[in-house]
Amino acid sequence: MSNCEGCESQVARLLVTCQDQSGIVQAVSGFLYEQGANIISLDQHTTEAYGGKYFMRVEFHLNQLNAKKQSLSEGFERVAQAFAMDWRLSYNDEPKKVGILVSKEDHALLELLWRYSHGALPCVITKVISNHLALKEATERFGIEFVHIPVPKDEAGKEAAYAQISQEMVGNDLLVLARYMQILSPTFVDEWQGKVINIHHSFLPAFVGANPYKQAFEKGVKLIGATAHYVTSELDEGPIIEQGVERVSHAYSVSDLRELGRDIERDVLARAVKWHLEDRIIIDGVKTVVFD
Amino acid sequence: MSNCEGCESQVARLLVTCQDQSGIVQAVSGFLYEQGANIISLDQHTTEAYGGKYFMRVEFHLNQLNAKKQSLSEGFERVAQAFAMDWRLSYNDEPKKVGILVSKEDHALLELLWRYSHGALPCVITKVISNHLALKEATERFGIEFVHIPVPKDEAGKEAAYAQISQEMVGNDLLVLARYMQILSPTFVDEWQGKVINIHHSFLPAFVGANPYKQAFEKGVKLIGATAHYVTSELDEGPIIEQGVERVSHAYSVSDLRELGRDIERDVLARAVKWHLEDRIIIDGVKTVVFD
Amino acid sequence: MSNCEGCESQVARLLVTCQDQSGIVQAVSGFLYEQGANIISLDQHTTEAYGGKYFMRVEFHLNQLNAKKQSLSEGFERVAQAFAMDWRLSYNDEPKKVGILVSKEDHALLELLWRYSHGALPCVITKVISNHLALKEATERFGIEFVHIPVPKDEAGKEAAYAQISQEMVGNDLLVLARYMQILSPTFVDEWQGKVINIHHSFLPAFVGANPYKQAFEKGVKLIGATAHYVTSELDEGPIIEQGVERVSHAYSVSDLRELGRDIERDVLARAVKWHLEDRIIIDGVKTVVFD
Amino acid sequence: MSNCEGCESQVARLLVTCQDQSGIVQAVSGFLYEQGANIISLDQHTTEAYGGKYFMRVEFHLNQLNAKKQSLSEGFERVAQAFAMDWRLSYNDEPKKVGILVSKEDHALLELLWRYSHGALPCVITKVISNHLALKEATERFGIEFVHIPVPKDEAGKEAAYAQISQEMVGNDLLVLARYMQILSPTFVDEWQGKVINIHHSFLPAFVGANPYKQAFEKGVKLIGATAHYVTSELDEGPIIEQGVERVSHAYSVSDLRELGRDIERDVLARAVKWHLEDRIIIDGVKTVVFD
Repeated sequence: MSNCEGCESQVARLLVTCQDQSGIVQAVSGFLYEQGANIISLDQHTTEAYGGKYFMRVEFHLNQLNAKKQSLSEGFERVAQAFAMDWRLSYNDEPKKVGILVSKEDHALLELLWRYSHGALPCVITKVISNHLALKEATERFGIEFVHIPVPKDEAGKEAAYAQISQEMVGNDLLVLARYMQILSPTFVDEWQGKVINIHHSFLPAFVGANPYKQAFEKGVKLIGATAHYVTSELDEGPIIEQGVERVSHAYSVSDLRELGRDIERDVLARAVKWHLEDRIIIDGVKTVVFD
Repeated sequence: MSNCEGCESQVARLLVTCQDQSGIVQAVSGFLYEQGANIISLDQHTTEAYGGKYFMRVEFHLNQLNAKKQSLSEGFERVAQAFAMDWRLSYNDEPKKVGILVSKEDHALLELLWRYSHGALPCVITKVISNHLALKEATERFGIEFVHIPVPKDEAGKEAAYAQISQEMVGNDLLVLARYMQILSPTFVDEWQGKVINIHHSFLPAFVGANPYKQAFEKGVKLIGATAHYVTSELDEGPIIEQGVERVSHAYSVSDLRELGRDIERDVLARAVKWHLEDRIIIDGVKTVVFD
Repeated sequence: MSNCEGCESQVARLLVTCQDQSGIVQAVSGFLYEQGANIISLDQHTTEAYGGKYFMRVEFHLNQLNAKKQSLSEGFERVAQAFAMDWRLSYNDEPKKVGILVSKEDHALLELLWRYSHGALPCVITKVISNHLALKEATERFGIEFVHIPVPKDEAGKEAAYAQISQEMVGNDLLVLARYMQILSPTFVDEWQGKVINIHHSFLPAFVGANPYKQAFEKGVKLIGATAHYVTSELDEGPIIEQGVERVSHAYSVSDLRELGRDIERDVLARAVKWHLEDRIIIDGVKTVVFD
Repeated sequence: MSNCEGCESQVARLLVTCQDQSGIVQAVSGFLYEQGANIISLDQHTTEAYGGKYFMRVEFHLNQLNAKKQSLSEGFERVAQAFAMDWRLSYNDEPKKVGILVSKEDHALLELLWRYSHGALPCVITKVISNHLALKEATERFGIEFVHIPVPKDEAGKEAAYAQISQEMVGNDLLVLARYMQILSPTFVDEWQGKVINIHHSFLPAFVGANPYKQAFEKGVKLIGATAHYVTSELDEGPIIEQGVERVSHAYSVSDLRELGRDIERDVLARAVKWHLEDRIIIDGVKTVVFD
């Protein structure tokens, strides 16, 4: 939430991960000061209990940023080496490219496309791929390319399909599974490691696997939820980004749960994607750091 | 939430469970009308998908109720037989008797005692039993008897302890485990079937078992919760009454989660106990119907 | 939330308002029993403190309902006369007709149309009228008629515009102001009394009038909200149906508040409209009774 | 939420307010680095739209902090002068002194005392003053001094009473009005400017003034709330710190609203007080910045 109005195109974000040590803030803010940058926000997190990892996100404004990107990167590399940092610079004027995978249900897709059309998702949605044709028209209305790639049940066919999807998606920074009802191939998951966000229709780790609303109904829970997470090779086990719940009662049928669940899924997925696009998330092993 | 002010002592509640069939409302309301009762609220629930069970709760006011209890029961038994109903009448002027089991943590106990002292829990708290002495003084300040019954680790000692607890609790309608950190003996659980409410410090069915806040921390969830449920022989698996959650982030340590969790536990347990005391809950196998 | 699956077309709802008195439930349920109806849910509310008004909603299933509507009405009129009831019967197979008024902002409109397209709003949306052309295409995509009726600033022109709107909307049971940024004419408000739902972009009664998000920003509130209410001649003062809030902080700019506010408005308006369509709302003077 | 376990006594917090300008983070973090401090968290906020005020909160750890307090202050004064900063250093090992004012209702007081007794409020509660005797015993149980100071209705008596309260409270850093049902004298308010937190039993700015739950009932709102704010000479108009709401319905009587409201008040006040004690709040005119 920057107040730097009218100068959004000159805003950059720096993400840093390293071992916790003294002098990081001083070094980073000192470097940015020398460059003439103005720090808009600075967040950090340390995890002493688990070996002292350090995470930092700095958003800053820099006049004529576009002309200075290379010198900024080269200069920061020297700071980074001194602290053995993993780091990444992102620029408002280079929005991330996003591909979406869907099946038949439209709610998650439409929510993303509607927010995108309002300028509420800072990215370029490049393409929607589906194993069905149901959402072709809905996608194309927004002027976005739709590609139909069925996923066969046999292993070879499946591998080929995912190779094709991967090929189609080349160049995207993020893939969003907006209720994509297929299990990705291991190769695909490896290839897109840390770049695929899924919306799971339960409050994980409860109700892993198929048909979580039916599981929730049978268990008689009084709250249902949804979870946005990065996809890893462990099904429904990737680092959690965001979760939401709503209150339910004994009077909710499975289809009532599913209807309410759609609303939660839309909200939770939209928030998770927005945070990713704003570089607010750093993956920390099986968990995430989310700077809000 | 009755509006029948000034006449609370003449209010009764009728809970009914039977097979779904035609004419139940008509029969029950007709019977109550003949008795001169005024229906304050009427709730019902049917579960067609699982064989058509029917649940009903009626709250009513009846002048000179106290003198009419026996004829009311006898009369309703005839209605009940025609529909093969399980049923129960409860009276505002016969508040339930409640015993509490605690260990060392005071938050759940104090919340219940504070609400009780304000008249917000319609019951008589008869006794607090603990396997520690830590909460003796806090209990006695409220004028409530405290009994210290340690629970040995060996089976025989454990059985004896629970026999003693059961004996001490005789006459109570409800036992509340207000963070009682012992696993009840199977015999005890059987004996008090449907009459023991526990507060579990997670959003069940996630994080069953010991140290759920540590489990939640390690999983990196973005919401933590608590669950009030009836105790059955399956640990942490009894019918869920109520659940609550609060938002957390990567910045919460295990002890931060525990501190926030205490607040959720207090709220959730207090609501569940209140609903039980107001006869709003009917156990339906592994689930509950909660009329609010 | 009926469990009567597969027989939804034979479901009716009865709304009753009268003075509180003995025997109402018995009379209504007795009448329905005689007709062969099966009560799905029954809710009631009394307001003793304000003179003892009584409100009731009964949802019931009746085989071959369509053939029995007239006899049902005639029969119930006799019950109603005995208790001096205002009453209304609604039928699932006669969904309400709904017209929508919008200006330029699309979020509330699209939310309603999307839910409608999913079958989540039990009604027929007949027409969208706007004082702008901005949402013509978005409306027509859903196969719904769009009518452009500009509203001039002068009184005569304004009266004429509202006369035209009223004429266009004839036959609708409900009008929804989905962020319609014009003040309705008094004649129009009178004509559609109790049939117009508005979404106000604040937590009423806070921030009445123009630009509530700016007001909220300047006041520095920590929660922002939205309110769905029936429209009356008092601006922003009609009976409240539903409200929602979300947490905000000092870091939110006015435009951040507006963006988050859109999400709250969508949710709150959709719930209010759904409840109206399901006959869950009875207006009680300046307030509402909402049976959920 | 510091992870600096075992070294809490060597933690300090620095609050800064100044005009927004380049180099602040660099200067502050550079200064702290030179002192050997380790930054635990750093938050900042700018309000460009209102003239570019800048707010900063830094929490840091410094070995042997106790011996370095004076040099730290003197050193930072030089940094501060260069930027024309208002600033304040606080130390974990110098907890704030807190006085509480109450009347008859115990819920807000007991919540604070219970949290205090758990170590969840980092302060020293020095004294409770009341215009009634009702809460004397409840206070003294926690080992805290209780002073009874009735407030007469006449102006002279009132002034004298507040002079006495002020005298009794000398040395406290914060006064908490835990449902203190008297309007403070203007002199008193001036004297304790920015140091008095009140809990108002409504979602301000709705329902200013007396009996907000009755106002809420009559308005028929669907959510009720509570607001913690700093006290200023404008009644119920001081800078808002925190707000909370809960869902209600037509079925809630005024006393039901009051009972639920108590729970919201407890939560909201406890959070506001905790944030003040942790130096998370900076007053910005009629608003607050709350770093969480």
